[in-house]
Amino acid sequence: MGYGEVDQTAINTIRLLAVDATAKANSGHPGAPMGMAPVSHVLFNKFMRFNPKNPDWVNRDRFVLSNGHGCMLQYALLHLFGYALSMDDIKAFRTIDSITPGHPEAHDTPGVEVTTGPLGQGFANAVGLAMAQAQTAGTFNKPGFDLINNYTYCFFGDGCAMEGIASEAASTAGHLQLGNLIAIYDDNHISIDGDTKCAFTEDVMKRFDAYGWHCEYVEKGDTDLQGIEDAIKRCQDVKDKPSVIKLTTTIGFGSQLQGTGGVHGNPLKADDIKHVKKQFGFDPEKSFVVPQEVYDMYHKTADAGAAAEQEWNKLFEKYASEHKEAHTDLARRLTGKLPEGWQKSLPTYKPTDDAIASRKLSESVLEAIYEAVPELVSGSADLTGSNNTRWKKAVDFQPPNTGIGQWNGRYMRYGVREHAMAAIMNGLAAYGTLIPAGGTFLNFVSYAAGAVRLSALSHQRVLYIATHDSIGLGEDGPTHQPIETLAHFRALPNIMVWRPADGNECSAAYYVALTSKETPSLLALTRQNLPQLEGSTIEKASKGGYVALEQEKADITLVSTGSEVGICLEAVKTLKDEYNLTTRVVSMPCMEVFDAQDKDYRMSVIPDGIPTMSVEVMSTMGWEKYSHEQFGLNRFGASGAYKDVYKKFEFTPEGIAKRAKKTVDFYKDVKPLRSPINRAFLQLI
Amino acid sequence: MGYGEVDQTAINTIRLLAVDATAKANSGHPGAPMGMAPVSHVLFNKFMRFNPKNPDWVNRDRFVLSNGHGCMLQYALLHLFGYALSMDDIKAFRTIDSITPGHPEAHDTPGVEVTTGPLGQGFANAVGLAMAQAQTAGTFNKPGFDLINNYTYCFFGDGCAMEGIASEAASTAGHLQLGNLIAIYDDNHISIDGDTKCAFTEDVMKRFDAYGWHCEYVEKGDTDLQGIEDAIKRCQDVKDKPSVIKLTTTIGFGSQLQGTGGVHGNPLKADDIKHVKKQFGFDPEKSFVVPQEVYDMYHKTADAGAAAEQEWNKLFEKYASEHKEAHTDLARRLTGKLPEGWQKSLPTYKPTDDAIASRKLSESVLEAIYEAVPELVSGSADLTGSNNTRWKKAVDFQPPNTGIGQWNGRYMRYGVREHAMAAIMNGLAAYGTLIPAGGTFLNFVSYAAGAVRLSALSHQRVLYIATHDSIGLGEDGPTHQPIETLAHFRALPNIMVWRPADGNECSAAYYVALTSKETPSLLALTRQNLPQLEGSTIEKASKGGYVALEQEKADITLVSTGSEVGICLEAVKTLKDEYNLTTRVVSMPCMEVFDAQDKDYRMSVIPDGIPTMSVEVMSTMGWEKYSHEQFGLNRFGASGAYKDVYKKFEFTPEGIAKRAKKTVDFYKDVKPLRSPINRAFLQLI
Repeated sequence: MGYGEVDQTAINTIRLLAVDATAKANSGHPGAPMGMAPVSHVLFNKFMRFNPKNPDWVNRDRFVLSNGHGCMLQYALLHLFGYALSMDDIKAFRTIDSITPGHPEAHDTPGVEVTTGPLGQGFANAVGLAMAQAQTAGTFNKPGFDLINNYTYCFFGDGCAMEGIASEAASTAGHLQLGNLIAIYDDNHISIDGDTKCAFTEDVMKRFDAYGWHCEYVEKGDTDLQGIEDAIKRCQDVKDKPSVIKLTTTIGFGSQLQGTGGVHGNPLKADDIKHVKKQFGFDPEKSFVVPQEVYDMYHKTADAGAAAEQEWNKLFEKYASEHKEAHTDLARRLTGKLPEGWQKSLPTYKPTDDAIASRKLSESVLEAIYEAVPELVSGSADLTGSNNTRWKKAVDFQPPNTGIGQWNGRYMRYGVREHAMAAIMNGLAAYGTLIPAGGTFLNFVSYAAGAVRLSALSHQRVLYIATHDSIGLGEDGPTHQPIETLAHFRALPNIMVWRPADGNECSAAYYVALTSKETPSLLALTRQNLPQLEGSTIEKASKGGYVALEQEKADITLVSTGSEVGICLEAVKTLKDEYNLTTRVVSMPCMEVFDAQDKDYRMSVIPDGIPTMSVEVMSTMGWEKYSHEQFGLNRFGASGAYKDVYKKFEFTPEGIAKRAKKTVDFYKDVKPLRSPINRAFLQLI
Repeated sequence: MGYGEVDQTAINTIRLLAVDATAKANSGHPGAPMGMAPVSHVLFNKFMRFNPKNPDWVNRDRFVLSNGHGCMLQYALLHLFGYALSMDDIKAFRTIDSITPGHPEAHDTPGVEVTTGPLGQGFANAVGLAMAQAQTAGTFNKPGFDLINNYTYCFFGDGCAMEGIASEAASTAGHLQLGNLIAIYDDNHISIDGDTKCAFTEDVMKRFDAYGWHCEYVEKGDTDLQGIEDAIKRCQDVKDKPSVIKLTTTIGFGSQLQGTGGVHGNPLKADDIKHVKKQFGFDPEKSFVVPQEVYDMYHKTADAGAAAEQEWNKLFEKYASEHKEAHTDLARRLTGKLPEGWQKSLPTYKPTDDAIASRKLSESVLEAIYEAVPELVSGSADLTGSNNTRWKKAVDFQPPNTGIGQWNGRYMRYGVREHAMAAIMNGLAAYGTLIPAGGTFLNFVSYAAGAVRLSALSHQRVLYIATHDSIGLGEDGPTHQPIETLAHFRALPNIMVWRPADGNECSAAYYVALTSKETPSLLALTRQNLPQLEGSTIEKASKGGYVALEQEKADITLVSTGSEVGICLEAVKTLKDEYNLTTRVVSMPCMEVFDAQDKDYRMSVIPDGIPTMSVEVMSTMGWEKYSHEQFGLNRFGASGAYKDVYKKFEFTPEGIAKRAKKTVDFYKDVKPLRSPINRAFLQLI
């Protein structure tokens, strides 16, 4: 079809919106938008299928800007194609409470699929989106009903290419033969330190080839629109491999500083802005200008996308009549609601039931609910047998030609790639049809911290199954024993950190995790066996904290989690026998959920007038919020049989009782002795 | 020279020590030691130069077991070659307080260079060790004095090969043309989930080739000792590239379960142990057997190593006479002590000096001390201009043929590879001649969490220069604004987390960081300007916390860090004017250092009888240890100009005063009102 003047005008319009918005904000990154405007134009106008009026259409093509600092590119495109992002929003770039923040945030901006900016994340999210497409297609497509066939497109730059998370994700995508994933590498040779030759001289395409990707190269990315189009077409034709296009561009194309680090992260100077506008045939005195023919062209494309959605809706209606059950399932999944009554499948336990490790309890939950919750997909970063993340009849998610799985498999083999696993799960969740759970050792969730943070920030319903949760893992020793990990994630906003003490609490953790549409969860689970508690129920534990043992006229409250709750209950007898003290015990499987209960309830659990001591075999940080004194472990652990390790650090009934006695004595003279729940003022939330 | 029976006996002895030790511990990983015993034998006995009697000899060859779960391989070698690791130590494998913990720990076991186990770390440490060798050689070698020319050898497995951190490090090593680095890839096709074909089907050697590595392949790694030797020799001959040998081995070689996941992480069954011993010609009824000829052979090699060290010592004496200054410098560095009087170079500030961002203050420290502290090497993960980590006259550490640096350069260009940077710094520090500092945004230190943890666990003197430390970074927004990060690292044992409030505090942070030989430090630094405080000195700040403003009969103590200390000082006036309250202000730049002061001092800073409120513009977690009430930010931030963001969240004199007033009122009736420093019992440390 060829490209003409209006195409060039559109490209320059995108460039200048980025120039004007960063100048007005006096902050931001004009360079990448100016360099990638041509490929954006070709991709969005010639290839991508989307309806700006319904950014949630499930079969839309997904676009991920992994180099999220270039977000003015994305905001400009969203605006020009007619998403609910106005010119005023563009003008409010990088100002408080705008929908155009400094990096793209999925939760706040229509048309932004995932939250990017932290480098490499978007690339791995794109792999997750493509996996979700393949899994959902494998599940729902039927002969004559190619319902789910969208592409996932991803832009990434040199920074993303250097990040390990992107390497992990690329290797995964190659293994999985994700034919609907097309990534475009902005090879502009510039990162913040200047020319990439100072640190990054590898052959990126050879590396992607090694991962099993189809590789294309477009040399003149600034101008060769037809070459870009042809390359994308060839990528679409490769069905059994993900594709990457290396696109050599000039960062800050058009600026007097083009091709230098000077245009990466700073607005252009006033005279340079005029220079660029003149050069592009725009009025140098005017800002935020969109020629009507650009709106016209893009809105026509948007209309075609809307029409495509209409066609799809008809197909989906027809699907309803021929595949009623599948239709109902998919339609329900898109609402985010779980199937009616699914929670009846959750296992419950009596105190007389066997002691069981909470990682095994978690496995029993998965085994019990996987049929009732078909959108749940599980997986592990190569610790399947240790994380207990796989139900017995699970089918692996694999390309069928591998002979070891199917596209509709619900078990993901992430390999030893914790960070990519987490970011892929963010992509799986963002697709809209799946709820991902993924396992690793709790200590190695830290490898994935960058992506866990984005699960929280972007409100993704993702479950981290984090086993081997303490020194209780024993012999593997300090390199594997978490000390700081729960404190870390408890300090992270919008994530629920669970540490269940028994079977009912474990079921409660899954109940709350799966029904919380906008919040990820981390389940810290033991390697060692735990007894079933006397006072636990799913309902009580679903409040995040509850009284596991109530006593009249108690001298002290012990508040604890997970494997230590049982030891605290044992300590009750020691405290009575040795010190004549009466002890209440509170189990607090999830602080965040407890914090969300009303104050009366919280005060009833941790009341005024009684000293409270926390017991948890890791960093005490954070426990002051719920206790006057803290018994924990603010040093690294030790390698040995777990009972020996617990004994070394005095996490025994005697060790607890000794400290509880000191706590009672210490607070005897304090009047009034307030519950730590009682605070002078509320925190901003 | 060929290989004979005694070589095979030695190899099988190594295998059986791993079999016996894991069986006795009823825990551990026999598979990798059994598979890698042949290459270990060839490498340690034919190539490596080391003196077991002096594991600290600076020019020894370094060995890193990146697949650290196979540590019985390393312990067996250390024992057999005569390091201070006895057969009783082998028998105490994985028991409490042994020097043979579940994964190798550098700080505790002679001959273990770096702490490994968390996958991929050791590989990146090895890159750091090789960089340190190249940098130290570049600095100290002179014509006729090839003082520093050791090799770094690294074993790694499929797990390490999958980890992003290893990808980042491999790309870095290829760029840097590290000819003295030789990595051996245990291609055994098995990881915990079974055959690696379920997740890992990339072409690993093609990938290393893409990074610029020299690649070798030995197909029969179980038996082809000569092939292994020849491959290592060819690698040694390649001087301008790091080398990798892909070695196909059989995991658990000799076991009935060889070649399966069953031998990866579980001891062999009793009958299998007998089977293996019989097969290898050992007495099936005996355990922990070392034929004398094996000791003899290995001790001869060790003696040759000792002799090599003697030769080297002579060369170093001669060096003393011809290059006195360099000799003194190197000899001093090896003691870990800084040059006499270096601290006199630290900048000091008066209250009348300009307001300056603490990232700039940090730059001024580097500028002031780099000549006085020649072992200091700086760098950044591609944020040099933002982290302010580079002194003006710095030379980049680069292969000279790149034309952009020298081997003796002291500035590292890590690229956008935070995790590898941190692990490389652990390797740089472990080498013994350098103190590495490396920068990124505080938020992205989280990408490096796995390696930061090992800085702490393995007692490495590493400095993390973490700029853009809060919502004060402004427009980049929530994706870049740390909330949980300081809580995370404060909860990690053995790391000092600094957040200096002004120039003197910044100098104090460097003073304590550089003089703490066994503890890493993280310096959280602002993007925005900070005033120089009235009451600060290097000496006071070096106590971690001090009274910045004392007042008679104070109604409240405000305790704060970094950018909020100045705002607290402003709030003093607001509190007096609006509420007639008298306010003390404490600056607490480093909690860990404050905790190390005696109790009298700490109580003088945060005394009994006065309510204390903390002010820090991020998670309040951890502040309960020093305050009764906490003003912080337990939600994600916002994108906007930093003053607008501070205002939105009420981090203003008014916002502080309002909450301080509530705190005073709330605690009026509590008697006695104890300082939070006052506790019922001490924590285990």
